[in-house]
Amino acid sequence: MTSPATTASYETAVTDLLGLVAYGELTAFERLAADSALAPTLAGKVQVATMAAAEFDHFRKVHARLAELGADPTAAMEPFVGAIDAFHEQTRPTGWLESLVKAYIGDALTADFYREAARHLDGESRAVVRDVLEDMGHGAFVVEHVRAAIAADPKVGGRLALWGRRIMGEALSQAQQIAIRRPALAALLAGLLCAPDAEAGDEDGVGRMLMRLTESHGARMAALGLSA
Amino acid sequence: MTSPATTASYETAVTDLLGLVAYGELTAFERLAADSALAPTLAGKVQVATMAAAEFDHFRKVHARLAELGADPTAAMEPFVGAIDAFHEQTRPTGWLESLVKAYIGDALTADFYREAARHLDGESRAVVRDVLEDMGHGAFVVEHVRAAIAADPKVGGRLALWGRRIMGEALSQAQQIAIRRPALAALLAGLLCAPDAEAGDEDGVGRMLMRLTESHGARMAALGLSA
Repeated sequence: MTSPATTASYETAVTDLLGLVAYGELTAFERLAADSALAPTLAGKVQVATMAAAEFDHFRKVHARLAELGADPTAAMEPFVGAIDAFHEQTRPTGWLESLVKAYIGDALTADFYREAARHLDGESRAVVRDVLEDMGHGAFVVEHVRAAIAADPKVGGRLALWGRRIMGEALSQAQQIAIRRPALAALLAGLLCAPDAEAGDEDGVGRMLMRLTESHGARMAALGLSA
Repeated sequence: MTSPATTASYETAVTDLLGLVAYGELTAFERLAADSALAPTLAGKVQVATMAAAEFDHFRKVHARLAELGADPTAAMEPFVGAIDAFHEQTRPTGWLESLVKAYIGDALTADFYREAARHLDGESRAVVRDVLEDMGHGAFVVEHVRAAIAADPKVGGRLALWGRRIMGEALSQAQQIAIRRPALAALLAGLLCAPDAEAGDEDGVGRMLMRLTESHGARMAALGLSA
């Protein structure tokens, strides 16, 4: 587990993981801040902007960890620009409710992914990811908005359920692309490649991780009053 | 200066001023974060996102001060939504350079305005505004980008000079609308209405303040290599 070759691969994998997280947070910030313009009320605008600002703060922390590891943060993010930009292009909200649902699903899915990934990381990188995790959950306000909108017009529920499936489908499809193109990262997430002080060392498979993420997604859609 | 009537007007004026600043920072955050999608490079995206995040931090501080004063921050912002939204609608950048120039001009103009306004405020509100001021100037990176673009294609300079004039013209026009509709705020900025512990107590006139802001704007346009 600690041979030079494995160490080099672990370094590649952790740089990839942090680069992916950094670019994901940066674009989440950018898209969500832009979406706050769709808010029908000032209070809603402030809630969404608060969520966006938290995402920038996460970006900053992960960016700092990359620099600490001696990586070029911009170069670390580059490999993920295509997949993440494509995800956002395919899931561009056309209104306030779609934006809220995307923010809620995206935030929760990201938190699940961070929880999965953290177990395979070295202590310091794990601490950074968990620190970010603790600051998540700013999307809880979405639940009442969405449930109220469905109560007012049940047709909204059907439309948003489709929207939620589209977001999840696009996320999974881009995740698979990334796993194919970044083998070290895929190996890390599959438990094939671990930091010497990682919490989880057992092989588990990227497919099974994605399955767990999909299950949690289903539970969350139900909480919003939507069928997954 | 401390009669009950004047105190009530001062309270109205300071709530107005902080509401104006809060909504201005919130929308600056929102628009700039959205514009970071226009960045041609990842490094540029990070620079603009950093500037946007700083604006959200300013919003948070001013919002907290409003709450501390017992004002409803949302109600304090409401009167300025129309003018500030109109400003942004009229100055929607069509590309990266226009976005940079707007960010730079907007940031510097706002800083000048805060400097002017702070002098008329009570000690604690003044401290909040000065605290925000100290965190400004994240737009310095814009100068080299704009100068390089003009060096590469001198026609760009003419186009951006027009753009800068449009931004300033729109800002002045909205400022005049606000001064007409919010007499207590106008009186505060004119030095007719001051906190007992304000630094400046002399009548000065809103018109003269706007003139000073316009002069500084001209100097800044020159620094960018643009005619004002």
